Amino acid sequence: MQAPDALFGLAEAYLDDLELTRDLGAQQQSMRYALEGGKRIRAVICLATAEAAGCEPEAALPAAAALELVHAFSLVHDDLPALDDDDERRGRPSAHVAFGEGVALLAGDALLAEAFRLALTYPTTAPARELAEATLGMIGGQYLDIVGDHEDLADVHRLKTGRLFAASVGLALWVADVPGPSQLPWRAFGEELGLLFQIVDDVLDGDGYAERLGPDAARDLARDAAERAHSALEEIPADTSVLRAIVEDLVVRTA
Amino acid sequence: MQAPDALFGLAEAYLDDLELTRDLGAQQQSMRYALEGGKRIRAVICLATAEAAGCEPEAALPAAAALELVHAFSLVHDDLPALDDDDERRGRPSAHVAFGEGVALLAGDALLAEAFRLALTYPTTAPARELAEATLGMIGGQYLDIVGDHEDLADVHRLKTGRLFAASVGLALWVADVPGPSQLPWRAFGEELGLLFQIVDDVLDGDGYAERLGPDAARDLARDAAERAHSALEEIPADTSVLRAIVEDLVVRTA
Repeated sequence: MQAPDALFGLAEAYLDDLELTRDLGAQQQSMRYALEGGKRIRAVICLATAEAAGCEPEAALPAAAALELVHAFSLVHDDLPALDDDDERRGRPSAHVAFGEGVALLAGDALLAEAFRLALTYPTTAPARELAEATLGMIGGQYLDIVGDHEDLADVHRLKTGRLFAASVGLALWVADVPGPSQLPWRAFGEELGLLFQIVDDVLDGDGYAERLGPDAARDLARDAAERAHSALEEIPADTSVLRAIVEDLVVRTA
Repeated sequence: MQAPDALFGLAEAYLDDLELTRDLGAQQQSMRYALEGGKRIRAVICLATAEAAGCEPEAALPAAAALELVHAFSLVHDDLPALDDDDERRGRPSAHVAFGEGVALLAGDALLAEAFRLALTYPTTAPARELAEATLGMIGGQYLDIVGDHEDLADVHRLKTGRLFAASVGLALWVADVPGPSQLPWRAFGEELGLLFQIVDDVLDGDGYAERLGPDAARDLARDAAERAHSALEEIPADTSVLRAIVEDLVVRTA
């Protein structure tokens, strides 16, 4: 089993070498810019899940990269003046500041389409179908977020962050050929991991759950989610030690 | 063989009844708005090709709708202030004028993701793969267009308009299970049809080819493309009468 750091390295090298569609021409520069500097947590979860489920992590690299491209697409569009209007991302000017709004808009579009191209390199439609559904859920969450419909914060988060996290596990299951009924505990794990990540993120940023519940109650919520994630992993007859380490690493960040 | 008008009716009814992803919530309204009022030429070509290639046009409806969703996505994003800044589309306020820029941006994103969801309802990855590649080419053309790199107008058009037209034929071939080597004359037809459509559009709008070459030379170019489209159809051992009628209908529009 490869440690999260090693899987991060695999994902990073794959994204560095990724050939984008030639017809995109110089548009590729803005796409690469938007892809740089991520933590690759979705890719690492995908690769770790694939290896735990019994396949070579390398086989899951196109799926892992597809998830990172969808994530990058969502950040580029979220940062645009029409949405969050953020001038900075990952400590650098955001894509529209660096390349102009028009190019950034198209970069996001192209990242999304390239993500599907990658997910479609597998022999069945299942990985790409799961990616499409997760992306649509994510956009639904983003919509709730901008129209200010935060009545149920859990709903916004479950969609906006949770769906792509759950898909990070889900895509790996298809790549590793885990049959439908055996996927259930893995998927339960993916749901809790998404929630855990969101709470941790809110605690670190002092918004969302942390703002609504206070930091201590948010930390308790994170611990509960981590416990349920561990319980789900215990039901899986496989070496899930790396996935357990990923959960622990997230919990530690709130302490 | 169903006439273009009947195929238009099929596509229109399918799009009217299309269930969008539930998680999109009220975002669906802006998506439906953006879908309304199109000529459905890409859908009609897809359905007519599928029927000529020997399958029920109904089987090609998800593919035909996916093409229309990609087209609608591209219009919504093109109309945004960051790109062409068009306030009107199909005689109505464009999506961002009607719903605001943020919602329109997300509507475009969601239309693209829904298009993949539809293309992924087929048993193989082929239709969705072709859709992804065509979409990426289209975005590459849009990029050339906005950075003002019009040295080769034919390149911009081949990508921006031509790729989705060619895919309208291509997706139908996969749906109808036409084997790779037999696809060649169909695909040659699709390329010429895309070029023909673009020239006709330019003649009607007085820009692009018509502006560069003058209207008469542009009309000659259209007639040449139509002739090559007919030649390609003659090589296909099938009843391609509806496709021939579509070509003729386009040529007549420039007269």
